[in-house]
Amino acid sequence: MSYVPEAGIEQATLAEQSLQSVINEIKSVVGPSGWLSADADIAPYLCEQRGLYRGSTGLVVRPTTTQQVSKVMTICSRANVPVIPQGGNTGLCGGAVPPADGLNIVLCLSRMRSIRSVDPGNFTITVDAGCILAEVQQAADQHDRLFPLSLGAEGSCQIGGNLSTNAGGMQVLRYGNMRELTLGLEVVLADGRVLDCLRALRKDNTGYDLKQLFIGAEGTLGVITGATLRLFPKPVSVTTAYVSLPTLQSVISLLSLSRMKTGDQLTAFEFMPRFGVDIAVRNIHDIRDPLPGEADWYVLMELSSSVNDGHLDIMLETLLEDALEAGLIIDAAVASNDSQRAAMWRVREALVEAQKFEGASIKFDVSVPVMSIPEFIPEASQACLEVLPSVRPLAFGHCGDGNVHFNLAAPVDDDGRFGNWTPVFNTVVFDIVEKYRGSISAEHGIGLTKREALGVYKSDIELDVMRAIKAALDPLNTLNPDKVIPIRL
Amino acid sequence: MSYVPEAGIEQATLAEQSLQSVINEIKSVVGPSGWLSADADIAPYLCEQRGLYRGSTGLVVRPTTTQQVSKVMTICSRANVPVIPQGGNTGLCGGAVPPADGLNIVLCLSRMRSIRSVDPGNFTITVDAGCILAEVQQAADQHDRLFPLSLGAEGSCQIGGNLSTNAGGMQVLRYGNMRELTLGLEVVLADGRVLDCLRALRKDNTGYDLKQLFIGAEGTLGVITGATLRLFPKPVSVTTAYVSLPTLQSVISLLSLSRMKTGDQLTAFEFMPRFGVDIAVRNIHDIRDPLPGEADWYVLMELSSSVNDGHLDIMLETLLEDALEAGLIIDAAVASNDSQRAAMWRVREALVEAQKFEGASIKFDVSVPVMSIPEFIPEASQACLEVLPSVRPLAFGHCGDGNVHFNLAAPVDDDGRFGNWTPVFNTVVFDIVEKYRGSISAEHGIGLTKREALGVYKSDIELDVMRAIKAALDPLNTLNPDKVIPIRL
Repeated sequence: MSYVPEAGIEQATLAEQSLQSVINEIKSVVGPSGWLSADADIAPYLCEQRGLYRGSTGLVVRPTTTQQVSKVMTICSRANVPVIPQGGNTGLCGGAVPPADGLNIVLCLSRMRSIRSVDPGNFTITVDAGCILAEVQQAADQHDRLFPLSLGAEGSCQIGGNLSTNAGGMQVLRYGNMRELTLGLEVVLADGRVLDCLRALRKDNTGYDLKQLFIGAEGTLGVITGATLRLFPKPVSVTTAYVSLPTLQSVISLLSLSRMKTGDQLTAFEFMPRFGVDIAVRNIHDIRDPLPGEADWYVLMELSSSVNDGHLDIMLETLLEDALEAGLIIDAAVASNDSQRAAMWRVREALVEAQKFEGASIKFDVSVPVMSIPEFIPEASQACLEVLPSVRPLAFGHCGDGNVHFNLAAPVDDDGRFGNWTPVFNTVVFDIVEKYRGSISAEHGIGLTKREALGVYKSDIELDVMRAIKAALDPLNTLNPDKVIPIRL
Repeated sequence: MSYVPEAGIEQATLAEQSLQSVINEIKSVVGPSGWLSADADIAPYLCEQRGLYRGSTGLVVRPTTTQQVSKVMTICSRANVPVIPQGGNTGLCGGAVPPADGLNIVLCLSRMRSIRSVDPGNFTITVDAGCILAEVQQAADQHDRLFPLSLGAEGSCQIGGNLSTNAGGMQVLRYGNMRELTLGLEVVLADGRVLDCLRALRKDNTGYDLKQLFIGAEGTLGVITGATLRLFPKPVSVTTAYVSLPTLQSVISLLSLSRMKTGDQLTAFEFMPRFGVDIAVRNIHDIRDPLPGEADWYVLMELSSSVNDGHLDIMLETLLEDALEAGLIIDAAVASNDSQRAAMWRVREALVEAQKFEGASIKFDVSVPVMSIPEFIPEASQACLEVLPSVRPLAFGHCGDGNVHFNLAAPVDDDGRFGNWTPVFNTVVFDIVEKYRGSISAEHGIGLTKREALGVYKSDIELDVMRAIKAALDPLNTLNPDKVIPIRL
């Protein structure tokens, strides 16, 4: 677009006037407790948690009903004012940060927080989008059911955000991502109309499955206001092992064997390298190494069942004996009580926290087909070491889903400028991910962080179809504009 | 549209000329063995198996590669000639039947029949869309894996059709519908471009999940040419019970209890009324009633596991004891060998076959939330009896998914005109389904059969969004036009 100063100024003024009138209209819709505009009040809504992006907004609106969301969207759509939907604002890709020009409305769902209904017999729960994930877990638990989504931010992230980013987490291997956990959605469209796909059915082949469009769309196609989610029998027995393994290939072989020998009771299969365990033990005070030694790889595996008859323990024991006999594992520790189990999980969690004590990190949330992990990790590590020989690769993650958190810890003698290497390592790592037909964002989404990379690693045809869908559902481009879809060069 | 005879004739002639040139171009793309046009050859492609719809076509093209499909689509798109994709042509809603005017191309995928690769370690299989379902099951089995989709037509239906109708079948309770079994798709778009989403990843949050659009779209948004599907550990132990129950409520309570007490090993939970068992025994010669008696309801349940250590039998025994004690079941028979197991399944299968010996049927493939089944079935039955007191309602199906095959057998003294009641009963039954927020097509899809009903029971907003998606992906409306989406009144 060519630069026309006069018209530009005029347009900006028009946009500001339009925004002010929209703000006034919205205030009257949601009432005095439904909006925030004081600098101190709106500050938390303007940046993402790692401080990578900071935006500005005309108003933070916090509706309490789907009808209010609908009215807000209608008002904004008519005036062509962008709306930035926001849940718990715990995303890692800047997808909920408003643009810097401030000519927008932040639509925060946090006051829509009702558990609408729990149906234990149908194994479903229907909730407002603003419900905190942990609250949904608890509501299910009170009815002797499990809502299996579990991730680090569960105490503050919201279901709407979990849906919009198709959240994954620890138990995907057994229960699937947020997409697989969703039966129905209620969505407010860009123009304010309410799309009611809130059905609690496991089989429904009546035309296009529209709810799929909004899951993982990061608020660019509609505002999710409610959801019907799948529940599962609550596990009452759990058994956990921490094993050491000689090679990455043996990690993958153990995963296969575990799937075959545990009758779909495998809930977690997390892998870590020795270096990861070392930095956890070194930096976090309450860590006890469950298997001190010099093995290259460690796996934390867990089985769970809604039946408590001792059978899981027998299955795990048999599995570990078979694995030992086949030379897949070196040693194993089985948790004999809850505190031992917690101590094992503490290693896995501490690995994440411990990284910051080792200085800066450049982190990748990628996935490859499970069988490619033993090739991918050494190849990506080697390529990074060729670029910067003192970099310290650290790969761990949800092995069962092919999800590798491939991180690069700064050199020990980093002068504080390690972060500047990010674009270089992005290219190195993403190129290798692409070679294995993997994903450059397994769990966290695109937002702003990976938008340009998406332009490089998705085919033009995929991008064209994405743009066609965006244009069909948000023709004015008022819904979280400039997120996810790369700007056309 | 107003009627303009002159232009109409001219347009028809133009369309015929255009079709002829398209046919010639396509023939040169696919070679002599790639097309059929003789009346006898194309006859099977023109009607659906129940003979409800019969169409006409200019050419049946049978490409062998994705590139050929792409060229065919490009040619047809440029000339604005409709393309009707077809798999095994086993659909029950007329979704693969060409329009009667014959000014179209039928695109049959049956010669694209390669198992492209099996990756047992990643638990995935990648196949051409024209593979027969049973072949995919066999390929998985040869690698000690299970592809769990199983349905009556598995010997002739094709994966592309299974995907396009989001097929369900017997094991959805445990493994999900076709949608949940799909990791990646290769699709040829309306304009001939190839959309390659053929990734074998369990976690991939890189923008809109485009493959979801084509699953269940019945060939109206793109032509599926290949798919990467999820595999599971092959079950090596199975245990099956056939139980009698006093009420429909106890059927539902037994389902809940079974899910809780079997640690996600429940693979099937099929329910049948006494009347259903009676007509099976009465009409099919090789049926032995596993539990002769006068109970109102019967359930066939099956557990399976990839571990063979006798544990399933113990779980089932415990479950049945608990259920007996709680008064949920009257009696139970447990299969002690494969032939007893087969005999129990034979009752369930015979129930379907036996219906035709009882005269005409009007059949409904609906779903409601599981907990609503005990209200839905009596209410729908009563409403039908009020319309026609001599009608014989027969409700059975995949209880675990809320999927009720609600059928109406003709009165004993039917004069052959029972089918004329179809529109009346459609309204009666669908209205009650809608009241329970159910689905008027749980498994079979929309096609032509339920297209107008979709216009009645979907909201205008849902229909609008469906139309917007259709227009975005098939702007010329050349892909299976007039299917699924109701004609705007």
